[in-house]
Amino acid sequence: MRLAFFGDVVGRSGRNAVSDHLPRLRKQLGLDAVIINAENAAGGFGITEGTAEHLFAAGADVLTLGNHSFDQPQGIGVIERDGRILRPANYPPGTPGRGANLYDVNGYQMLVVSLHGRVFMDSLDDPFQAAERELGAAPLGEVADIVVVDFHAEATSEKNAMGYFCDGRASLVVGTHQHVPTADTRILPQGTAYQTDAGMCGDYNSIIGMEIDEPMRRFTTRMRSARFEPASGTGTLCGVFVEVNSKGLAVRAEPIRIGGQLAQQIPTV
Amino acid sequence: MRLAFFGDVVGRSGRNAVSDHLPRLRKQLGLDAVIINAENAAGGFGITEGTAEHLFAAGADVLTLGNHSFDQPQGIGVIERDGRILRPANYPPGTPGRGANLYDVNGYQMLVVSLHGRVFMDSLDDPFQAAERELGAAPLGEVADIVVVDFHAEATSEKNAMGYFCDGRASLVVGTHQHVPTADTRILPQGTAYQTDAGMCGDYNSIIGMEIDEPMRRFTTRMRSARFEPASGTGTLCGVFVEVNSKGLAVRAEPIRIGGQLAQQIPTV
Amino acid sequence: MRLAFFGDVVGRSGRNAVSDHLPRLRKQLGLDAVIINAENAAGGFGITEGTAEHLFAAGADVLTLGNHSFDQPQGIGVIERDGRILRPANYPPGTPGRGANLYDVNGYQMLVVSLHGRVFMDSLDDPFQAAERELGAAPLGEVADIVVVDFHAEATSEKNAMGYFCDGRASLVVGTHQHVPTADTRILPQGTAYQTDAGMCGDYNSIIGMEIDEPMRRFTTRMRSARFEPASGTGTLCGVFVEVNSKGLAVRAEPIRIGGQLAQQIPTV
Amino acid sequence: MRLAFFGDVVGRSGRNAVSDHLPRLRKQLGLDAVIINAENAAGGFGITEGTAEHLFAAGADVLTLGNHSFDQPQGIGVIERDGRILRPANYPPGTPGRGANLYDVNGYQMLVVSLHGRVFMDSLDDPFQAAERELGAAPLGEVADIVVVDFHAEATSEKNAMGYFCDGRASLVVGTHQHVPTADTRILPQGTAYQTDAGMCGDYNSIIGMEIDEPMRRFTTRMRSARFEPASGTGTLCGVFVEVNSKGLAVRAEPIRIGGQLAQQIPTV
Ligand SMILES: [Fe+2]
Ligand SMILES: [Fe+2]
Ligand SMILES: [Fe+2]
Ligand SMILES: [Fe+2]
Ligand SMILES: [Fe+2]
Ligand SMILES: [Fe+2]
Ligand SMILES: [Fe+2]
Ligand SMILES: [Fe+2]
Repeated sequence: MRLAFFGDVVGRSGRNAVSDHLPRLRKQLGLDAVIINAENAAGGFGITEGTAEHLFAAGADVLTLGNHSFDQPQGIGVIERDGRILRPANYPPGTPGRGANLYDVNGYQMLVVSLHGRVFMDSLDDPFQAAERELGAAPLGEVADIVVVDFHAEATSEKNAMGYFCDGRASLVVGTHQHVPTADTRILPQGTAYQTDAGMCGDYNSIIGMEIDEPMRRFTTRMRSARFEPASGTGTLCGVFVEVNSKGLAVRAEPIRIGGQLAQQIPTV
Repeated sequence: MRLAFFGDVVGRSGRNAVSDHLPRLRKQLGLDAVIINAENAAGGFGITEGTAEHLFAAGADVLTLGNHSFDQPQGIGVIERDGRILRPANYPPGTPGRGANLYDVNGYQMLVVSLHGRVFMDSLDDPFQAAERELGAAPLGEVADIVVVDFHAEATSEKNAMGYFCDGRASLVVGTHQHVPTADTRILPQGTAYQTDAGMCGDYNSIIGMEIDEPMRRFTTRMRSARFEPASGTGTLCGVFVEVNSKGLAVRAEPIRIGGQLAQQIPTV
Repeated sequence: MRLAFFGDVVGRSGRNAVSDHLPRLRKQLGLDAVIINAENAAGGFGITEGTAEHLFAAGADVLTLGNHSFDQPQGIGVIERDGRILRPANYPPGTPGRGANLYDVNGYQMLVVSLHGRVFMDSLDDPFQAAERELGAAPLGEVADIVVVDFHAEATSEKNAMGYFCDGRASLVVGTHQHVPTADTRILPQGTAYQTDAGMCGDYNSIIGMEIDEPMRRFTTRMRSARFEPASGTGTLCGVFVEVNSKGLAVRAEPIRIGGQLAQQIPTV
Repeated sequence: MRLAFFGDVVGRSGRNAVSDHLPRLRKQLGLDAVIINAENAAGGFGITEGTAEHLFAAGADVLTLGNHSFDQPQGIGVIERDGRILRPANYPPGTPGRGANLYDVNGYQMLVVSLHGRVFMDSLDDPFQAAERELGAAPLGEVADIVVVDFHAEATSEKNAMGYFCDGRASLVVGTHQHVPTADTRILPQGTAYQTDAGMCGDYNSIIGMEIDEPMRRFTTRMRSARFEPASGTGTLCGVFVEVNSKGLAVRAEPIRIGGQLAQQIPTV
């Protein structure tokens, strides 16, 4: 089984990076499943039904979210209705939508779990307990053939910890939210593929996907003068490729970077 | 001119990664200058005269620091005395040591500036103003042949911003502190080499360089039961290689990862 | 029914303020119950069996804690054993001790709940959900004659919110942790007595109970040079007095400040 | 010389509390000077020319600001033009407006300094250095007859520290930003009047001045569904009264609370 995960899609540049490269890549790598973090798909903040459809049409099976999940009020409906979209599982009881789900992809059962960190972020219930609960509900190798955990978090320490916490119980633990890919793709001792951050799908000639001017002004003057706007240059498709064995554990994990400003990286299969 | 920068050396595993690989690498890549962030060199927290000497002996020309600069009380003396060691330039007036310095390396004048971020970190004076002041004092192409900025910061947004802020005025802006290398090594539009984080030199089978047990306990139970200890497995030498032209601007920028758990990457020259 | 709550006891000055004034005050005000936050009782950090005994002997019925609950390793045993000591109820499952308890005081059933805030503090499970659970388990006017909630929190907004969240379901919601008493003692619309912060029992000629020198050095130089030590001048007993009716709702709420540096305030009964 | 300082005016309820009570109080207490923090005067966020005029007309001599200084784009002009309005002195160079100023009030020279804290707040330059600079530029007893420092800060520790840092060099150091008055009004050992927070002028039947519903929703569900709106009930005028001697040091310091939900407190002169 082969799967790919792509990080935070930021605005039109990010959406285009996905639709320009994913259809071909899906065939080329023989992917059974594709998961994409879409929390910044709509104008850089949140998701709408239209942006979700764009990503599904390009080849996504599941979309995950993060701290920007509900930034678009008109997107809340689709998050509630569409079982292919996940917001963090450790949101308060009663939050619209779901945090984990089991999917049938190419005949395999795939569990995807969306989790949200707490270090340097908004206060939420314990993501480690939530991981324990969700991984226990559909154990890898028993109920699930593949388990993918998207840990949307700021601190590398918390992300490292989640990797080891799930090691042997997930096919892949991958971080999102930092909008910069990390170069630590590897397989942990018990067989879980891991990368601290998938990086964003978007224009890297920017400040984490946004036009440079306004965030630069805020950093240097502490004054706001405009809204953040997504940068509009050519985007990079950015993520991680994983091949799993019959137990759902990783036998191969490699970064993917196609298009745009970053050094290109495509797994050869 | 060729230089290499290596990220936060963590404990003995990190120090050994440097001394095991740097002497050979320095010759192999024909490096004119080597800068290493050493804020975690002594037991994971701070620096001592002995650990500094180990890194200089292995081939470092300059050592930079960060939020852990003064964790070892017995290390404050060497920070004050030794001009090859830099603590962040935006520390309060009166802080021991210096934040920027001009070095003669192989006949070139090299300015190194240590800066400390403010997002999700301790409160300090504006690092952008400090950058402006230090870069203005020894302009690239006039006073300095090479300018290296180590931006020790948590948030990728602040690090991206510092890259563009210095673009065209530095040979390299590289982040440290996250202890995970990023895969966004590139040359910015005005010629400055950039990588959001150099990654640590240390054992990656760990939580950002520390033995897994204690940080895992704190994340999952909120209780402390022991000190953090550096992980003791084989370390990875982790950093970035830059080649600059006669104006001090980058013509080449590539990651370096040697030894340990990460995918290996050595520039070919 | 009359009760008094006293805020964070800091070190010897705080312990002495309690034992110097509480025995007399308990008689003078005809108090049925006394609750004291003791998270800083032992040298400014945490609690020990000895400091707990000192406070019980002086007239405390129940001791609550906060972010410093487990700072003294030798205090964990007494927190586990002694049902009169409460640590925050929204700590992770498996944490030693208990977060709420029902007490028989002078023939009345008193529920005390310890909660911990999340804004600008360590990450914990939702204190509002925890309040809901604990208040529901022993409803005021049915199971409990008196309900006291100690909300150990930093942000005044979160503390205000907890007051209104519990309004009509608790006799008193009082904040702790800021070590400065607030002057907003009042009865909320549904009958719950409220004060944003009880203030500390300790020496106010200090930085929140600590000797001035070391915290001043850290604020102005960002360097540490010694441990924090509790200030040793005369302490102030600082808290709130509440009288409740047969439904457990407040009919009177007034501040208490006795001894030390602050303007004196003793309810007349 | 007698002066009064009033804390953060929040929306119409706060503005009305000022205009309803201040004109009479100014005569009754024989006030030579009145300073008001107005950072929330306009709809709860920032200041406009109209809201500033309302407060000047009611008897304010000087208005200070805080983290919400520039929330109203149309208010930036008046901050730049009107020397009676101060934004924090430790904002970046180039920020519109001024952070300290010397005023002639009833024939006395009064220095007012606005400072902004850094703990749990936005990153700014060191407020202690800024205090040093401003207090040194117009020393109490030499250039200035009265010196008032408004320290707009979150953490009680940082506010305590600022009080002692300025002790003997200011007539009054008073905190703002928490929107809850503290009951620790006192004169520090070297003669500076001090209160950790002045409290807000506004409707206390609220969450720090705002209608309860929306902040409660965000605390309990982590979802936004509306803007914050200032609460519209009767406001309390909340502040501190100080009498200074010929050296500008305090001989008397007492809280003021008039109208609305809090226990009333008016100094008798
Ligand atoms: Fe994102
Ligand atoms: Fe995010
Ligand atoms: Fe660091
Ligand atoms: Fe580090
Ligand atoms: Fe405390
Ligand atoms: Fe506390
Ligand atoms: Fe305010
Ligand atoms: Fe404020």
